[in-house]
Amino acid sequence: MQHYPSKLLEAAVNEFSRLPGVGRKTALRLVLHLLRMPSQEVERFGNSFIKLRNEIQYCKICFNISESETCSICRDPQRDPGLVMVVEDIRDVMAVENTSQYKGLYHILGGILNPMDGIGPAQLNIQGLVQRLETGLVREVIMALSTTMEGDTTVFYLFKKLKPFEVNITTIARGVAIGGELEYADEVTLGRSILNRTPYENALAK
Amino acid sequence: MQHYPSKLLEAAVNEFSRLPGVGRKTALRLVLHLLRMPSQEVERFGNSFIKLRNEIQYCKICFNISESETCSICRDPQRDPGLVMVVEDIRDVMAVENTSQYKGLYHILGGILNPMDGIGPAQLNIQGLVQRLETGLVREVIMALSTTMEGDTTVFYLFKKLKPFEVNITTIARGVAIGGELEYADEVTLGRSILNRTPYENALAK
Repeated sequence: MQHYPSKLLEAAVNEFSRLPGVGRKTALRLVLHLLRMPSQEVERFGNSFIKLRNEIQYCKICFNISESETCSICRDPQRDPGLVMVVEDIRDVMAVENTSQYKGLYHILGGILNPMDGIGPAQLNIQGLVQRLETGLVREVIMALSTTMEGDTTVFYLFKKLKPFEVNITTIARGVAIGGELEYADEVTLGRSILNRTPYENALAK
Repeated sequence: MQHYPSKLLEAAVNEFSRLPGVGRKTALRLVLHLLRMPSQEVERFGNSFIKLRNEIQYCKICFNISESETCSICRDPQRDPGLVMVVEDIRDVMAVENTSQYKGLYHILGGILNPMDGIGPAQLNIQGLVQRLETGLVREVIMALSTTMEGDTTVFYLFKKLKPFEVNITTIARGVAIGGELEYADEVTLGRSILNRTPYENALAK
């Protein structure tokens, strides 16, 4: 156990090292960096997280982080309310938005099923998704979760849950990455890309 | 430029990514983690840095981080006040303390000379070191700075500055690491370890 010259320093290092992927050495380095910053900048730093945590709002439709009751995507009249893409968290929304290929809405689950971490259906925004389908406005639900065991389990759970509704359930295409070489693709991905081969004209449309 | 769904979120990501070694993707991941934490834990997190920055004290003798006017090392009557080890920052103090091999005092420079980053002699705690030597109590100053160009320059600068005093100036030994194999040592280190070879009895004393 490392000996710290000050309890305040140790407390700050402890707080930093509770974050995922931040070890104690990194935490100490970051804290020493903060000590070299002007006092008002450190106040702005610390308060930015407190302010975010206390004032954050979530869109009541899609559970995206929002500045008002509904987020800018759900409010956008240009977007197709019949298309809902189910994603794990807002980083996925940002990644999909960056492609400029998607003009539907989203539904943010807030995680995926993971019994080991105590995340069951009750911890995810699944009820909200069911309610959206009950309106009858949604014609297609696109599953865009990780292709891990947890992701696949979650998709399977949702599939059963959404089956009673008259809605198309699709998943985003899995296959060899564009610009990727065949020999470097793993065999599961390559196998799937052969099973799910696409008509040439569709592939061109990209 | 990434589009964030909320200005508060963007502000928090900006604050995190100002820290050294934290990119925007990592910052977003950390901020999303904070959002999942209870509100009072996030307050404790943010306030720990503000409190540290505002209430931190530095030892007026050695400039170590301290909880009072002088640090616990400088106050310790068991330690030899005639020995002063010059280090860059408190991480070095912690590393040396972990060896349990050193019973003298420290002097924390607060950095090393680096004109590119605007760090000149005035930015370092050099005047405090000179004042310590003026008391006549110090018989040996041990330089324990990085063996980089900046570190060597700083040692050279200090050497000239401290020359007028009747004090022994030494540097910690540079050589092949213990447990290290010769063939993996870089040639500069290996060359230096041959030039500065030690009598066998001293090497045993370790």
